[in-house]
Parts: sequence; C-alpha cells; structure tokens
Amino acid sequence: MPIKPEEKAEIESARSQSAQTRRATVPALEEVLFTPMPVLDHGFVRVIDYMGDDSAVVQAARVSYGKGTKRVNEDRGLIQYLLRHRHTTPFEMCEIKYHVKLPIFVARQWIRHRTANVNEYSGRYSILDNEFYLPTPEHLAVQSTSNRQGRGDSLPPDEAARVLDLLREDAMRSYRDYAYMLNEDESGKTVDESRSGLARELARMNLSLNFYTQWYWKTDLHNLLNFLSLRADAHAQYEIRVYADAMIETLDKWVPLVAEAFRQYRIGGAQLSASALTVVKKMIAGEYIDQPASGMSKREWSELMAVLGR
Amino acid sequence: MPIKPEEKAEIESARSQSAQTRRATVPALEEVLFTPMPVLDHGFVRVIDYMGDDSAVVQAARVSYGKGTKRVNEDRGLIQYLLRHRHTTPFEMCEIKYHVKLPIFVARQWIRHRTANVNEYSGRYSILDNEFYLPTPEHLAVQSTSNRQGRGDSLPPDEAARVLDLLREDAMRSYRDYAYMLNEDESGKTVDESRSGLARELARMNLSLNFYTQWYWKTDLHNLLNFLSLRADAHAQYEIRVYADAMIETLDKWVPLVAEAFRQYRIGGAQLSASALTVVKKMIAGEYIDQPASGMSKREWSELMAVLGR
Amino acid sequence: MPIKPEEKAEIESARSQSAQTRRATVPALEEVLFTPMPVLDHGFVRVIDYMGDDSAVVQAARVSYGKGTKRVNEDRGLIQYLLRHRHTTPFEMCEIKYHVKLPIFVARQWIRHRTANVNEYSGRYSILDNEFYLPTPEHLAVQSTSNRQGRGDSLPPDEAARVLDLLREDAMRSYRDYAYMLNEDESGKTVDESRSGLARELARMNLSLNFYTQWYWKTDLHNLLNFLSLRADAHAQYEIRVYADAMIETLDKWVPLVAEAFRQYRIGGAQLSASALTVVKKMIAGEYIDQPASGMSKREWSELMAVLGR
Amino acid sequence: MPIKPEEKAEIESARSQSAQTRRATVPALEEVLFTPMPVLDHGFVRVIDYMGDDSAVVQAARVSYGKGTKRVNEDRGLIQYLLRHRHTTPFEMCEIKYHVKLPIFVARQWIRHRTANVNEYSGRYSILDNEFYLPTPEHLAVQSTSNRQGRGDSLPPDEAARVLDLLREDAMRSYRDYAYMLNEDESGKTVDESRSGLARELARMNLSLNFYTQWYWKTDLHNLLNFLSLRADAHAQYEIRVYADAMIETLDKWVPLVAEAFRQYRIGGAQLSASALTVVKKMIAGEYIDQPASGMSKREWSELMAVLGR
Repeated sequence: MPIKPEEKAEIESARSQSAQTRRATVPALEEVLFTPMPVLDHGFVRVIDYMGDDSAVVQAARVSYGKGTKRVNEDRGLIQYLLRHRHTTPFEMCEIKYHVKLPIFVARQWIRHRTANVNEYSGRYSILDNEFYLPTPEHLAVQSTSNRQGRGDSLPPDEAARVLDLLREDAMRSYRDYAYMLNEDESGKTVDESRSGLARELARMNLSLNFYTQWYWKTDLHNLLNFLSLRADAHAQYEIRVYADAMIETLDKWVPLVAEAFRQYRIGGAQLSASALTVVKKMIAGEYIDQPASGMSKREWSELMAVLGR
Repeated sequence: MPIKPEEKAEIESARSQSAQTRRATVPALEEVLFTPMPVLDHGFVRVIDYMGDDSAVVQAARVSYGKGTKRVNEDRGLIQYLLRHRHTTPFEMCEIKYHVKLPIFVARQWIRHRTANVNEYSGRYSILDNEFYLPTPEHLAVQSTSNRQGRGDSLPPDEAARVLDLLREDAMRSYRDYAYMLNEDESGKTVDESRSGLARELARMNLSLNFYTQWYWKTDLHNLLNFLSLRADAHAQYEIRVYADAMIETLDKWVPLVAEAFRQYRIGGAQLSASALTVVKKMIAGEYIDQPASGMSKREWSELMAVLGR
Repeated sequence: MPIKPEEKAEIESARSQSAQTRRATVPALEEVLFTPMPVLDHGFVRVIDYMGDDSAVVQAARVSYGKGTKRVNEDRGLIQYLLRHRHTTPFEMCEIKYHVKLPIFVARQWIRHRTANVNEYSGRYSILDNEFYLPTPEHLAVQSTSNRQGRGDSLPPDEAARVLDLLREDAMRSYRDYAYMLNEDESGKTVDESRSGLARELARMNLSLNFYTQWYWKTDLHNLLNFLSLRADAHAQYEIRVYADAMIETLDKWVPLVAEAFRQYRIGGAQLSASALTVVKKMIAGEYIDQPASGMSKREWSELMAVLGR
Repeated sequence: MPIKPEEKAEIESARSQSAQTRRATVPALEEVLFTPMPVLDHGFVRVIDYMGDDSAVVQAARVSYGKGTKRVNEDRGLIQYLLRHRHTTPFEMCEIKYHVKLPIFVARQWIRHRTANVNEYSGRYSILDNEFYLPTPEHLAVQSTSNRQGRGDSLPPDEAARVLDLLREDAMRSYRDYAYMLNEDESGKTVDESRSGLARELARMNLSLNFYTQWYWKTDLHNLLNFLSLRADAHAQYEIRVYADAMIETLDKWVPLVAEAFRQYRIGGAQLSASALTVVKKMIAGEYIDQPASGMSKREWSELMAVLGR
C-alpha cells in the first residue's frame, strides 16, 4: 500500500477544499484531482494541477479575445488538423502537473525528457523511505533474442523465485546498512549515541536502483504527447509503460478531443519510409513484391508486414 | 483605444463565467483575469490563465502530499532561501499565460526568450489590423553617446514633430498598399473584381516594424522572473520595459511572496565582480582607493560608484 | 550581389588559413567552408563551423573510447535504425553553425525553432543596410483557395509589375526616411549638423519586413533535421524553403549517411493515421473503399490519395 | 586504474590521427584531446570534440564575415563586457563534447542541467562494468549541522573503516547477484546452460547508486559556465565538484579569455541583495550597523560578513 495514513489525510484535506475560478475548468479531471492512481507495487501517479482544456488549444490557435471556440465539431476538426500537420504550439498552451512515485531506474529513463519541470525528493536533505520495487513473477523475463533492448518470455517459476529472493535480500540489506550508516531515525534523532552518522548525501549511494523516489513533474500538453507516444509504446520498458498508461487515463479525462486525435494520428497510425511507401503502392496495384526486391532489410520488411497486418 | 467593441464583449462574456475548482486559486489575480492592461498606444497585456501560487513553490520544494505549507513566515523564509541560493526548479512549478498586443520590433526582442510557449497571430492566414506604434514626443530621443545601445535626451519639439510625421505617413502608406495588394476586405471578400489579390504571406512584407502583432505567451515563474529582471532593467529599450512593468503588477497580485523576494534578491541588489568586491572591502576598511589603483576600467568603476550611490 | 568587396576579402582571408586538428574533419564540407551560397535576391547561407561527422553519431550511440565505427555498411545500418526508431540523442552529438542573411519576415518564422543558438545583427547598436527583398514576378502569387495558409497561381504580368512597383517604392521610402531620422552616415558621423538624429533603436521601426537582417545560427544535427523536414516541406513558404534547400546541400556534404537516412525515413515517406492505415489494408486486400465509407474527411482522403499516387 | 588496455589503445589510435581544417583550432586543447583526466577512484573526464574559441565569441557578437577579432585587449574587453552585462548568446556559439565516467548518484545530479546533449551507456543493451565508487576515508563525513544539505567533519577512523567495509561488501554482493541473474559473460555467452538469464533491463535494478556509468555530454559554452558556477561551488557535493574542477582546467586551455572573465564576474564576485547593498553603503559611510538593525536574518547576515571577509 503506497500511501501512509498521514499522507492520505493530507490528500483528503486538499481534496475537500474548493474555490471559485474564472479559469478553464474540467470537471472530469477535478473529480480525480490529487487522488493517487497505483502503479507497480509501491508507486503512483496523481494529478496535482492543470491549466487549460481542449478549448484552450483552439483559443490559442485562433489567438482569441474570448473563449475562441465554435461548435464542438469544428473544434474537433481544428484539433485534428493541428495534430496531423504537426502544429505544436497550440498544444503547448495547456499544462499539467503530476506527483509521481517511481523506482530510481525508471526515473533515470523518464528524466531524459528534458522539456519538463521537475522537483525531486532529495536524498541530500532527507532520508529515503524503505520501499523498493519487486517485479511480479510474470514480469521477470529473459533477455529478448530478437531485440537487444528488451525482454522475451517469462522465467521458469523456480528461477523467478530465486531472482526475487536475491532482489529482495539485496535491497533489504542495502537499506539496513543505509540506515545504520545514517544513524538517525526519521525525525533526525541519533539512534546510537556512541557513534556519529554518515552524511545523507553519502549514505544514499548504498541504495540500489529499484528503490523508490518521487517527484513533481510538470509539462505542457505537446511534450506530454511526445512522452506518452514514446513511453506507452510496445518498445518501452514495461516498468515505465505502466506509468504512461496511467497518464493516458488522465489525458482522456482532461482533454478528450486531443486524446482522440492523439490515438488517430500519433499512436494508432504508422510512419512509412520511402521504400515502404513504394512497397505499399505496388501491393495496392496488385503487383507482386517480396523482401529481396523491396530494397528493405529483413527486419524492416517484417516490421512493415506487421504494420500491414500480414 | 486598443480593444474593439466585439472583443470587449468577448472578454466580458469570459469574465462573467466561473466554476468550482480544487486547484490553487488566487483571488487577487482572478479579479483582473482576462482584463487588458493598456501598454503603449495600442498595446495591452492581459492574464489568460495561471497555475499555482506562492504555496505551490513551497509544496514542490517539499515534494508534498498535501498543501505543503507551514506558517506564512516559514514559507516566506523558504522562498527567499530558494531565490537567494539559485534554486530554480520550485519556481518552475507555477505557470502563467498572457495575451499580449505589441509592436513587431518589440516582439522581435521578446521572442528571444526561448523557454516560453508562443502562439502568434499569423499574417499567413489572416489580415493584420491597421494599427501601428507612434512614440509620444518625449520618448523620441537621440542616440545615447555613453551607451551604444540606447537613447539619450529627447529630440527638440520641431524635430520630434517631423519624425512623427514621417513615421505616421510611412506607416499609413505601408498599410494602404498592403490592403491594395491583398484586394480583400476583412471578411475575405474581393474588393476590386477586375484584378486578383496577392497572397497574404507575401503582402505582409510591406508592413513596417512598428505595426502591432499579438500572441499568447505562456511561461513558468522561474523564466518569467528572468524575463522581468532583464526587460524591466534600465538598459532595456523603453518600449519593452513598459510591458515588463505591467507584468510585474500581475506578479504582485499572483505570487506576492515571490514578488517580494524577487525585489530583494534579483532587481534590488547588485552583482559585484571579484575586483569590485576587493574595492568594497577596502572602502569599508577605510582605505583610499581610486579607479587606476582598482584595476577596473573607467566604465566599470563608474558603474560600481553608481551602485554604491557615490 | 549580396557580398561587398571588403566582406569578400574577409571571407577569402578566413578561407586561406588552416591548421592541424585531431578532431573529426569532413573534407567535402571544408571545401565550401565560409563560402556564401546565394539565396533569394540579397540573401545567403554559409557554413561557419561544424563539430562531428557521420561517425560521431555512431561513436556516441556506442559511447566509445575510440572512433567507435565499424564497416561503412554497419554504420549506415545503425544510423538508419536510430532514425527509424526515433532515437534522437546520437544526432544531437553533431553541431553546425551557419551565417545567414535573410528578410526579416523569414527570420520571424525561422526564430520559432527555439532549440538553436542565435546571434542577430542588432538594429539597436548598428545601422541596417539598404537591402530589401523583392520577389521575382513568377513568385508573386494569389492567395491559395484550397489552403488558407499559402499561395496559388502567379499574378498576371501587369498586376505583378504593379505589386513590384509598390513594394520597391515603399521600401525605398522606408529606408530613405530611416536614414534621414538617423542623421548619421555608416561610420556614425552626423550628416546634417543643424539637427539631432533619432536613436537607432527607434528609427529602425520604420523599416518594412522585407528588409534583410543577418545572424549566426547554430544547432545540433537532430534539431537541424527537424528544421529541414518542416521548412523544406511543400507547405512551407517559398521564401524560407529556398534556405532549407540550400542547407540540405550542406547536409549532403557534411553527413552523407545521415542525409541518406533522412530522405528515406523523414522526408521521403509518409505518416498514416489510424484510419488511413485501415484504408490501405483494405486496398491491399482488394476491397473497395471510398471516402464516405472510410470515416475520413474529404480533405484527409484527398491527402491520402495524393500520398498513394492515385 | 580506470582505463582498460584496449580502451587505452583506442584512445592512442584516435590521438595519433590528424587532419587539416579551416575551422578555429586551439592548440592547447588539441594537446589533451581524447586524454582522460582521472576523477575519483574510477572516473574520468576527457574532451572528445570542441567548436570555436575565444574569437568565436567575439565573431558572433559582431556577426562578422571574417574572423571578427581585433587586438587581444579589445577582444578581452568585449568578452568581459558581454559576461558582465549578462549577454548570453555569443557564448552559446562555442560548443564542447566530453566523455565522462561517473557514479550513478553523481549522474543523477548532473543530468538536471537540461540544456546539454547526452548519450549514456545503456544498461538495457549492455552489461555494466564491475566498478563502484568508494570514498577515501577523509571524505567520509557526518551530516552538517549548519546546512541541511551537506556534510561536516570527517568520521572517526574506526567508523570510517566500518562504513567502507559496508559500502564495499554491499556493492560486491550487488554486482555478484547482478551477474548471476544475467547468466551471461561479457561477450553475451550463457554461463550456466542449465538455466535462463534475466533481461538486462531488469537485472540492472540490483546495482547500487555508487556504480559507475558513462556518457557523452555536449553543451555550449554559456551553459557550461552555468554548470561550472553551480557545481564548482563550495555548496556542491564533493563528488560532483571534482568533475567541475577538472572541467575548469579544460576551460582554461580552450577559451582563456572567457575563463578569465568567468573568474572575475561569475565565481570570484558576489551577489548582494537589496538589504545587503544598504548595509555595505552604511559600512562604507562609516555608520555602525549590526544584524538586528539590518533587517537581515542571522544566516544572511553571517553569509554577508563572510563575503566581506569580516
């Protein structure tokens, strides 16, 4: 259970307050505001704040004095046009802020999206919690043979059990020795008065990469779509993909028209190379074409056949 | 008067609507939301949307589950500490969106702040309004002799009048010929059926740099402070400084504790060089020091004496 | 002729010098280094400096201690893989710096690519040259009827002549009055001692958007490819497209393997939406499908048919 | 010794090659190009490539056709003027690329400088080396009492020895189990044929934050100065400060005039707040002032007295 009782109380207190605003407001997102969506064994994603809605995209594209919207169908059409033709700036006019709890090795991938604003819980100032990620057995998989960057089938049960034992024992020892070196409890009080304690900025180096960290992460809608299209992709590591999937749920609530266009033009479609386009034209014309004649590599050819469902 | 009646109606309509929200809300900023603050002869700045408040800075710095704030004095102290020690990320957790109408030559300086999100009214799609900037006589000044990048005393009245005549006549002719080349009225209807019209993306090149454009401009609080400290500075061109001044008024309403710290640590203080610091130490010790002995150039020396009020 | 004799002499002098370096060096690009490629009537693009080559992309992808390259075919394959799978960071490891002379209205589009480094010639410090862009008659076109953002057929010859006269006269008057208001010659000497001159930062507002400016523009290879794919596109305004076309020539000299992959995966292919992919699958299967049955708008359908060459 | 023999051979081979170039070239930096400077127990920094020199800053500020430089003293003066007045864009015209080997917890601080380009060695693709950071005993220190973010005195020898034992044992176990779970040797060959191996992207989570990673890191000179002023500062953690110190050595070789100005205006001087400036003025005027009368907090007052050497 990722949330402690005092944290839960803080969240409930924040949720219980409300105010009048003239700003664009999205009831479906307000409904879940501040509420953590569980991800992995101890992680979560929750929306902390947002700016704008579907209409704000339209309003910015039209540089309006007022709401700038027309009938829903016209707004939907404009949003689709903008996404299809790679107009990025209107989507930058919406902003969202998340609070995320995630394993450090996931945070290391995530942080490579440089356009976001980030405030991470600091192991220099504060003591980290004793929480680490352990995969479920079905997510413990062998190295993929077809893809150097990925995983294949699940491990046999006995091997999975052995791996989980190692991960658990090492993480527990790692934290036990971290706590020993710090020699202070959560409130900062010395535990063993007969010895000093190691500075927090040093002791933390003993923790392993499956320990959880947390951060506030804020981005605009354009960069959020980029993040989601890369991290919700089948090639992304499972442990970051589940965060992206949870965030797509918040996208649906926040900006439903943009989310619809995102599925149509960004994640539901396909990018064809020049050679692939030539192949597709020949296939439509009923001409026979195979991989050797296509000029494509075997790998690209099989990627294309997968896209075409053949 | 920069706002047309139909625009005013749109603004009033937007201001008349409100909704409940769980988000951080700032009544003082809500009060002026959407309302244009006049700048120069036809320009304005107005706040369109905002995310966060003083507490959001504190909350992010503490990576809180709830509001994250303590007593006002502690929050003030933390905000001052953060700004003094160049912690930038907590300030990135607040965001603001403006609608700005401004002369093109001002827009060309402004756009160099690359971290903002911008949607500009497009002269490729739309017809630009017949509005251009004319300085007031007291702002028509000679080139500065002490500063290659600036202006000195005002022009004599007869010269100022001559300059204003030239600027006005040239801008009017510029627009008249722009409209002639377009050969369409505001609604897109052809004016003279006996001839074609030039494409908008071409005709606009005839307009001069004092014509007004407008954009939606959105930025986080950290980058807003950078913008304001550079553009509200005495070295900034007057025509952009007045926009920065108007925006500082919105800063005061939005995040009063940050605005206070900004005055204390960013615009009210001074940066001393290594040599300047040595000079100051000697002066405090009561030692005599002059420019030649300081190792500073004459210009730097006089800049330092100005800072020290001597 | 865009280059003055003294500028030409400076360029020749720079070209005549050379030194030994251990850095990656590209002879084909060295050959044209510093040499202006003419664009439009007074503009140019020239390469001022570069960092890295095709191998630098490979070397970074492999985080190598040495050159990191293997056989050319393996390097080509890796570069194609990286571009196909949207790996952006290896391409950021190459950098190029251009000196560009361009009309202000083109500069205003160009500057929206925010990731580049830019140093523009300053009209606050310096006097701008009397050079403005006049389109050739065949590029003077009517507003497109099918595309709100673009141009259609060329103007009839008499109308084109009339437009050119207006553009020329207005630009000449604009500059004449700019020079009058400045009241100084190129060397900064007062022309008419009986009157003052207007500050440069003010006088420049009288110039129209077809006047030329110039800048140093530096970017990494990843962002250069983004720029080129958007600005060499058929939807880009002609006056910026010709700059992108000239820069693609420098890309071919600098990083031929990347340029080849760029044509294959970025500008030679096509992005299909989810609906378009369904249509393509049906067409390959020999099923009849038309626009109403496709769920696509007329405009999207005709865009797809154009892509498929039907 | 951080460099393996085959890596050393690759470096030597790269260093032995050279070519003619027309680009700005810096002999003092060429001298050390590719050579690793050791940092911490297994880390290093080495310059892989660079673009521009002191003159390139000047050339960009002047938007020159040729080298753009004048006499050294004028160039020095211009560079100092630019840095003093916060002109950032000319410094963005130089670029440098490093190869860095560093502990993961240092990499996590470093990566927060978002404007750089980074290619990190990937634990999804590749097996990480068995190398981890152990502080020297004198750098094992207690938590600072005056600064929540830092360290104080060194630990007593017996405690330091105990801490080092824990860090070493945990890291060794961590890697042993990582290798066991992978079940493959460096060449990718299965070690124990009777069982599968865990995917690399999963196994890596067992490594602790003191393990070394490596990356190519490329940035422009402006952002490098920002990085160095923050990370070479006394408040930065020791383990990142030693990297910044090594990089300042490369700065001195690369752009000596900029390095000189950097010491004068960025790291050798001081930022005074509005209140601090008032205090300094009073002290110079010989007036008595103490902390309570200054309106400054005790902490700020003591920071100011430290700056003034009192």
